Amino acid sequence: MNKIIAIQGAEGSNHHKVARNFYGTTIQLKECMSFDELVASLLDNTADLGIMALENTIAGSIIPNYALIDNKNLHIIDEEYLNIHHHLMALKGQKIEDIKEVWSHPMALLQCKEFFKKYPHIKLVEDVDTAEVAKRISKENLVGIAAIAPKIAAEIFSLEILEDELQTIKDNSTRFVIVQTTKPEVNKEVNKASLKFQLNHKRGSLAAILNVLSDCKMNLTKIQSLPVIETPWKYSFFVDVTFEEYSEYEKAKAIIEIMAEEFKILGVYKNGRK
Amino acid sequence: MNKIIAIQGAEGSNHHKVARNFYGTTIQLKECMSFDELVASLLDNTADLGIMALENTIAGSIIPNYALIDNKNLHIIDEEYLNIHHHLMALKGQKIEDIKEVWSHPMALLQCKEFFKKYPHIKLVEDVDTAEVAKRISKENLVGIAAIAPKIAAEIFSLEILEDELQTIKDNSTRFVIVQTTKPEVNKEVNKASLKFQLNHKRGSLAAILNVLSDCKMNLTKIQSLPVIETPWKYSFFVDVTFEEYSEYEKAKAIIEIMAEEFKILGVYKNGRK
Repeated sequence: MNKIIAIQGAEGSNHHKVARNFYGTTIQLKECMSFDELVASLLDNTADLGIMALENTIAGSIIPNYALIDNKNLHIIDEEYLNIHHHLMALKGQKIEDIKEVWSHPMALLQCKEFFKKYPHIKLVEDVDTAEVAKRISKENLVGIAAIAPKIAAEIFSLEILEDELQTIKDNSTRFVIVQTTKPEVNKEVNKASLKFQLNHKRGSLAAILNVLSDCKMNLTKIQSLPVIETPWKYSFFVDVTFEEYSEYEKAKAIIEIMAEEFKILGVYKNGRK
Repeated sequence: MNKIIAIQGAEGSNHHKVARNFYGTTIQLKECMSFDELVASLLDNTADLGIMALENTIAGSIIPNYALIDNKNLHIIDEEYLNIHHHLMALKGQKIEDIKEVWSHPMALLQCKEFFKKYPHIKLVEDVDTAEVAKRISKENLVGIAAIAPKIAAEIFSLEILEDELQTIKDNSTRFVIVQTTKPEVNKEVNKASLKFQLNHKRGSLAAILNVLSDCKMNLTKIQSLPVIETPWKYSFFVDVTFEEYSEYEKAKAIIEIMAEEFKILGVYKNGRK
């Protein structure tokens, strides 16, 4: 039986693209209109796997998603870095001069604001999703309306791409992770781990942990501190490391377990960075 | 002559509250509808000081604001931690039963979503700002409309508070910083510094820096890595430290200057955490 994959947003979205890259085109998709809904569908078993954006080069970490993974004890089993491209699309035969309104998610509109300065006749209208608008244009045959969405949406909904690469900042790499509620089998081909721990505000406590990681040949690819709510001077740290030898990772893990409080492994998986 | 203080948002906002806490009620305010506009007004000298939110306990760091401070070479001269409270306010004499619509910033509406489930007759309408709606209700005598804004807005615009503490998560502490374009005089009463540096992806390089900070008796209160865009495997680190002795801070600074690339001090100021 095919696994049901929960994605944030609609068919044709970047989350859908990641789902296809991992599991092919014949997948069972569950569209969720928020990350909360996505996680809820994993917890009530209406979906088997979830795909969540976790950070991007423009805005940094999506902290609420880290909190969801941490609080709901989800396991990260894989990751992918995707370059985000915004394309303008409409019904076939339409030209940019024919477009009166563009409907899209506020974040996509914001990222493409500069582009639309050249087209003052086009009204920008906030909508709930990017790809879902593409679907609506196609289904309801909406003339004069365009969507901002990834290429995959034009393909699925048979729309015409009027313009490529609308976004002002061209280099927007987003990191997506695949999560599930159960702990996966140990697979020794993994070479990356996401760790979380707490430290008291004692001078040198973080340096001590990082020394252990370094001694065990772990390469740090991300670190982020967050104050623990309602506990002054206590901090949570989210740390990603890559490694070559699984045995070294196990050694580091065993030592940090003793040194840090609330030590938790959010996932051990294959590094998605090329 | 009074200094002109640029704030994000309108009179009556949390940014305004911070301005008052530092500089009193007889200040010259410049309302900016975005952080970009705020920084632009510092650069073209139409304002002397700017007040910017930098991080909060719900969403973490506001990375674009770190980037603005870094890229435009602003100096952080002070900071304040403020607990954010959302209050429902309307024209005097109005009761919650009389309210048909609440207009506010999407983020405020989102944070108070749970509260409004008790009042299904109230329509939530997205608007550009929180406090600016309070002003409009007052100026245009808008019956049946309420704003979600801080208490200071009710006071300034003579509105009545219908309900306190609307937000679902009660503990939302936001860190605001005061920035300017010129480097301030060295003031030895300072006890906190915001540092930024780059490191190559060499194992142990961050641990080495943190060891220096620890040896010089610096206490780490925040750390965050960001990949340097278009330079694979190079990372920027934003680090905040507190200290007791200014001389120890100077020592740490001198060593890190030698060890790290692109070392930069974003500001040295008095710790605002009580």
